[in-house]
Amino acid sequence: MGDACLTVSDLGELGLLDRLFRFCPGGWVGDDAAVLSMAADRQLVVTTDVLVDGVHFSDRTTAPTDVGWRAVAANLSDLAAMGAEPLGITVGLSLPPTTRVAWIEGVYAGIGQCLNAYGGQILGGDLCRSPTVTVAITALGQVQPGQALYRSRAEPGQVILATGVHGASRAGLALLLEEVAPAIGAEQQVTWIQAHCRPKPRFDAVAQLRQLLPDNCDSTPVAAMDSSDGLANAVLQICQASGVGAQLVRSHLPIPPGLIDWVGPERAVEWALYGGEDFELVLCLAPALATALLRQLEPGAAIIGTVTPSPDILLVDTAAAPGSPLSLQAGFQHF
Amino acid sequence: MGDACLTVSDLGELGLLDRLFRFCPGGWVGDDAAVLSMAADRQLVVTTDVLVDGVHFSDRTTAPTDVGWRAVAANLSDLAAMGAEPLGITVGLSLPPTTRVAWIEGVYAGIGQCLNAYGGQILGGDLCRSPTVTVAITALGQVQPGQALYRSRAEPGQVILATGVHGASRAGLALLLEEVAPAIGAEQQVTWIQAHCRPKPRFDAVAQLRQLLPDNCDSTPVAAMDSSDGLANAVLQICQASGVGAQLVRSHLPIPPGLIDWVGPERAVEWALYGGEDFELVLCLAPALATALLRQLEPGAAIIGTVTPSPDILLVDTAAAPGSPLSLQAGFQHF
Repeated sequence: MGDACLTVSDLGELGLLDRLFRFCPGGWVGDDAAVLSMAADRQLVVTTDVLVDGVHFSDRTTAPTDVGWRAVAANLSDLAAMGAEPLGITVGLSLPPTTRVAWIEGVYAGIGQCLNAYGGQILGGDLCRSPTVTVAITALGQVQPGQALYRSRAEPGQVILATGVHGASRAGLALLLEEVAPAIGAEQQVTWIQAHCRPKPRFDAVAQLRQLLPDNCDSTPVAAMDSSDGLANAVLQICQASGVGAQLVRSHLPIPPGLIDWVGPERAVEWALYGGEDFELVLCLAPALATALLRQLEPGAAIIGTVTPSPDILLVDTAAAPGSPLSLQAGFQHF
Repeated sequence: MGDACLTVSDLGELGLLDRLFRFCPGGWVGDDAAVLSMAADRQLVVTTDVLVDGVHFSDRTTAPTDVGWRAVAANLSDLAAMGAEPLGITVGLSLPPTTRVAWIEGVYAGIGQCLNAYGGQILGGDLCRSPTVTVAITALGQVQPGQALYRSRAEPGQVILATGVHGASRAGLALLLEEVAPAIGAEQQVTWIQAHCRPKPRFDAVAQLRQLLPDNCDSTPVAAMDSSDGLANAVLQICQASGVGAQLVRSHLPIPPGLIDWVGPERAVEWALYGGEDFELVLCLAPALATALLRQLEPGAAIIGTVTPSPDILLVDTAAAPGSPLSLQAGFQHF
């Protein structure tokens, strides 16, 4: 039997663990829990995300290395949104006995690639039998006291900045689901598929922001959230946590170049607002600070609207026109 | 429709989140990640466990509050085995849309009860759709530098101490699976069922051990592991990590009173060694220290054997008799 066909039940739990330990350097794994020292005077930051086969990924759209990368990137993106740097992750893997060992090793390879790119180590894990493949990751990070970013710091007078294009991940998913886009160049298609399969937590944007901020960002209010559940969801959550409203300008939405040509303006806006999984950061901050940050960021980042005292959250065609309300319900709902 | 019949799909994700936030006091939940300050000069300890419906629990044997309690207790037991105190947990819950909301609230109530009893708060979570109910918990704890307990500190000349009876959880499971035990008193049966449904992480035993140890336990070797995967598994893992062997004496195994009367000596020993989920601690330590600790612990704790230089791990009838080897494979295997 070729190694490619080997399943979990062929190998057994102990055999599988032996293989997976290879992906866990650093000596963290092997006790009931991992013990690690943090840098002095740091706060601990913790977040968790669960990915389920058939819901968050499938063999049809996602290679095993991409499953691993995305699971880690989704968690690291949450750390980036809090202004934290990664320490490490735990991996809880639920698997049917028929799962191919090569698939699992692919997931761990993808996990390792993402950790190598952004920092952090595998600190522990659990492996158990389940009818449904599920990847549960918890990420730990650290931040200097006073430097954590929160959703609740939005204030009227701020503008809203997105650190990159939105809708690319949704377009990539559509392409993977074999919605052919003959009018779109191959290079563009690869970019969108990469956006879906290999999202990048925006630690770089946080670092740029830090350079523009005084040492203690408590004195300069910045609200932050990642756009994992969609751009509209991020704006809505920030506004709700801050007790403010927002006005987004349709023509300022950072729609990926070429997307309107493919799917038309209406669907492009829908994917930008509600497509989800772009894993960019949505920041509310003073206009001058936003303009300075925008100059540091790569093309795609945009100032998309303003924070308002009224609680309405509207999409407008021009700042003066009446707008249509954004909806939390229109985004991805699990149930 | 009565509230008892309400399902996740009736309520929707946002409605369910609103209900679950009630179980998350402390203001940790509501950002991309939780930010918490640790006590000064502490090391961080992290562990994760995944529980799957039909594998680790089922409606037949486990009330929802017990599912929540056990999921937390399993993780806290790992922290106790490392000598750490709990900071908090994250909860990743995967659910079919048909799951009853009352069941989920029961799980969260059980989670809260266990955290109230032993310390720690809910620091975050994730909620997603899945065909299989899965509870993925990561627990964070802290420990003073130099005071963490490890598996690798067993040395020949030490004795092996179990902090309580083993096999009670397996007996409780058998009773829940409707294996009637007419000869056994109702009070005994309740004790075993409680052992299965409401296991207790042994922070108390660690505290007793600390009082007997000098300030820095690096100078007094103590190996520790919890017995979640069985007493035999714990002894085997400690020996493997320490490069030593062990001799367990059959008559010294801490079998719950009455169990031999019910299932006979052979099965009672099997359940004690391989039943699993007793969540006691298995410690290897100097004989005098073990004797002193035993005096502090409640009945059920026992010195069950000795650490040997030979790598064999044997169950013997008397210290002089030839023994039979323990097996890692005989314990609970997921695959």
